Amino acid sequence: MSSPALIPPTFILVETQLADNIGSAARAMLNFGLDRMRLVNPKPEWPSDRAIALASGADRVLREAKVCRSLGEAVSDLQVVYATSARPRDLVRRIITPEQAGREMRAHAANGVRCGVLFGPERMGLVNDDLASVDAVITAPVNPDYGSINLAQAVLLIAYEWVRTGSDLAPSVLRTGDSPIASRQHLQSFLDRLVSELDESGFLRVSHMRPAMIRNIHALFSRTQLTDQEVRTLHGILTELVNIRLTRRPRPE
Amino acid sequence: MSSPALIPPTFILVETQLADNIGSAARAMLNFGLDRMRLVNPKPEWPSDRAIALASGADRVLREAKVCRSLGEAVSDLQVVYATSARPRDLVRRIITPEQAGREMRAHAANGVRCGVLFGPERMGLVNDDLASVDAVITAPVNPDYGSINLAQAVLLIAYEWVRTGSDLAPSVLRTGDSPIASRQHLQSFLDRLVSELDESGFLRVSHMRPAMIRNIHALFSRTQLTDQEVRTLHGILTELVNIRLTRRPRPE
Repeated sequence: MSSPALIPPTFILVETQLADNIGSAARAMLNFGLDRMRLVNPKPEWPSDRAIALASGADRVLREAKVCRSLGEAVSDLQVVYATSARPRDLVRRIITPEQAGREMRAHAANGVRCGVLFGPERMGLVNDDLASVDAVITAPVNPDYGSINLAQAVLLIAYEWVRTGSDLAPSVLRTGDSPIASRQHLQSFLDRLVSELDESGFLRVSHMRPAMIRNIHALFSRTQLTDQEVRTLHGILTELVNIRLTRRPRPE
Repeated sequence: MSSPALIPPTFILVETQLADNIGSAARAMLNFGLDRMRLVNPKPEWPSDRAIALASGADRVLREAKVCRSLGEAVSDLQVVYATSARPRDLVRRIITPEQAGREMRAHAANGVRCGVLFGPERMGLVNDDLASVDAVITAPVNPDYGSINLAQAVLLIAYEWVRTGSDLAPSVLRTGDSPIASRQHLQSFLDRLVSELDESGFLRVSHMRPAMIRNIHALFSRTQLTDQEVRTLHGILTELVNIRLTRRPRPE
């Protein structure tokens, strides 16, 4: 099933509050052969003896975990990013099961695409701004009356499905053309530029609408899995729409 | 899938050493709608405040858990009993995956058969005597070099598979948000407008590139399943990018 190019997913723990959960997450990952962990602003002092104790022999995963200052930094080199969340929000997002996530990540990995999965803080989960920039949200089929899964348990489920779906793998996830899927960094720089143009234009100046509008723009462009070529096309379009007007005569007021 | 006679499985924790694990197991069970727990000679003092804290709201499962003096007592009214074990022993036992276990328990439950699953002590797991009396051993597809799953994590996996294998909802693709997917007509009118702006700007005037460029633009925006609201957003963005420039001073030639 494995191929030389197979890239296992990176698990990104965002602002985790408890060292126990980071340690348990490392153990759960390694139980299913995953060892690429990143930590965005972990709350416990780091490195953490408590986390190492809970990792129960998987401390290599913790020692090699990259600590990042922002979510953007943590996902910058990844190409497809999923988020785990029990609660679908108002955002327009594709919702998939852990099983679907496993199959998709397998198919991506077989194509050399770098995937990541976000796990939010224990109490609050990921915020809408985080969810806006992911490709899809993974939601487990939990008890609707008691849906809050422990963080390390959520990590286990996704790691388990990564392995399980790999054993009967039928890679069928769509790929477009021969341009690779754009890195998040590449996509983000386009989105930053678009937002900055819209700020300048005044479109986003109505302050109470601004955050929601930016989220919508992120959501819209993030779930498409744009290729490098397409991001270049979007840059070109933006440049044209903005610049050509500069050479035009202002219209009469 | 569910029928009036459906009997959910009972989870039996055998000589568990840590209250944390009993609490976390209760939480994991209730996450997937299971609440029948039995404890065979639990090592912590019982009831346990620590277990209740870790159960994080699932303390009903703990309060209703039956404490038994022997494994025999714990399984006496059950009809089919599985054991979880990472290590197949010398015994001749049927080994199944968590997925198979889920499917079998579903089939049994639909026939009114009462099933149970044994989870052994943290360090040692179940002993051969325990394994000898079960119908099958459930083994997760773990990393052969690091196969020891935390007890509550093992509980989660089986509970998850109980639910997953029971839902014939092939959860294709759900959507969040309340705006419907835009009609192709609605989308097309945006694309026409975008192309016309780009034609006017000169971006598409290099004739041999024009058809491919238009195809790319269509492909990019079409595969996203944009909502009505998002198409309106795109119209707004386009209007802004174009119009604001009209009011600007032309840049010096």
